[in-house]
Amino acid sequence: MPEKLDGATRLFPIIGDPIEFVKSPQQLTRGFKLRDYNGLCVPMQVAKADLEPVMQALTLTGNVDGLLVTMPHKVAAFACCATSSDTARLLRCVSVIRRNPDGTWHGDMLDGLAFVKAQTDRGARLKDGRALLVGAGAAGSAIAIALLTAGVRELIIYDADESRATHLKALLSDLDRNRVRVGPADPVGCTLVFNATPMGLAETDPLPVSADLLDSSMFVGDVIAGHGMTPLLKAAQSAGCKTSSGVEMVDAVQEMMLDFFLLGQHSGRST
Amino acid sequence: MPEKLDGATRLFPIIGDPIEFVKSPQQLTRGFKLRDYNGLCVPMQVAKADLEPVMQALTLTGNVDGLLVTMPHKVAAFACCATSSDTARLLRCVSVIRRNPDGTWHGDMLDGLAFVKAQTDRGARLKDGRALLVGAGAAGSAIAIALLTAGVRELIIYDADESRATHLKALLSDLDRNRVRVGPADPVGCTLVFNATPMGLAETDPLPVSADLLDSSMFVGDVIAGHGMTPLLKAAQSAGCKTSSGVEMVDAVQEMMLDFFLLGQHSGRST
Repeated sequence: MPEKLDGATRLFPIIGDPIEFVKSPQQLTRGFKLRDYNGLCVPMQVAKADLEPVMQALTLTGNVDGLLVTMPHKVAAFACCATSSDTARLLRCVSVIRRNPDGTWHGDMLDGLAFVKAQTDRGARLKDGRALLVGAGAAGSAIAIALLTAGVRELIIYDADESRATHLKALLSDLDRNRVRVGPADPVGCTLVFNATPMGLAETDPLPVSADLLDSSMFVGDVIAGHGMTPLLKAAQSAGCKTSSGVEMVDAVQEMMLDFFLLGQHSGRST
Repeated sequence: MPEKLDGATRLFPIIGDPIEFVKSPQQLTRGFKLRDYNGLCVPMQVAKADLEPVMQALTLTGNVDGLLVTMPHKVAAFACCATSSDTARLLRCVSVIRRNPDGTWHGDMLDGLAFVKAQTDRGARLKDGRALLVGAGAAGSAIAIALLTAGVRELIIYDADESRATHLKALLSDLDRNRVRVGPADPVGCTLVFNATPMGLAETDPLPVSADLLDSSMFVGDVIAGHGMTPLLKAAQSAGCKTSSGVEMVDAVQEMMLDFFLLGQHSGRST
């Protein structure tokens, strides 16, 4: 058990449904322990329709200092936050929430930042890079914001559903500065190739980009955690590319959540 | 951390205010672990006025299987229970709550049963005994019910506030069968002497009964946990009495809570 689990333990529930497969209870709690902090991440199975009363109760519970928000609550939880980061406001969703000094909630979305950190930790050069991003869903949108903030020169967005890519480009208008375009899943000429689709969860999935278009000048990153190496990353390494896996992104998210909860970091300008 | 803390962990919050000094998070969680059960007792600091929305939210949270209720919620939480034990209904308060099959709550009050178990485990003979009970508050009331249920022949209740003793006698009318009377704090002629007052929390407290009236024919039990040996128990042991301390009662409560939550025990007839 956490060395310090007692009446003074501070709680950081993760709310979602289903909840039984989340990893944050063990991972974040281990992180608290490593930082010598008496905190605990506990799972709470909360159905979509029940978010509001549960949020109200957690707001009233004095030793709940933060929340992790997962499916299906990421969008609805944004509305429960009095303040939020620029990224959260742009995406209108949150993955983590902490207390403001007055007890209200401040929300943030750390997935994109964590993805970027995982890439740079493994040697990717984002500034002035030319990036292909495959996948314009929730993860892809967060990553696109983080890539533009990190200074990529060009961002090509591809999604099998082109309207999603177009919608994401529109969402990015404030950050765009003529850097974003919707294009095909063609990595040729790119220095950065990122997968933000579910492709690769199964070994038999098709690759999000053609393996024979990869070359060693490209850095390839993937959001898929699971087993670490996806077919895309295997193909990339065969082509001589440096890579970063979803497992490294998950590790980065854990550290960023600890910084967010304990140090008040990662929130940019707040409103 | 609990070996199994993960998304599938079942929660048993203890709700109260203040909450930081409760011992159940570590003790009950250790008990779950010893029984190889993936359960966790977490503290929740909930102010008196906020019980209702918090109970509503915990009812909606799918992996909350039970609750421990401490000050100031024991009376109000009774009203949140769809069903309860005879003891809880008599006292109109609960210390533990678990789910009924339909998701509603079933409440119980285990303190009296645990006190009785602590006495018999240490060799007290309750059946046909003559008991002096000092203290007719919440703990004393629960103990009185448990003593009568265990078959004592006579129960003399003393409280410095005589109206509390009289009120408790009236409360016990269904169990009384001419066994209960309000009397002085005089152990002479009793085989069982029990303290259910706070006297003994401080070393300098006066004794709840005169030490020179104790003799070796008496079994002496105390609800005060804290340091284990109270001045009363020291005096009793000097007089040759067998004794049981509040620490043993607390241990018994822990085991009974595990049985209550995991095995559905300790509820007598339910309504």
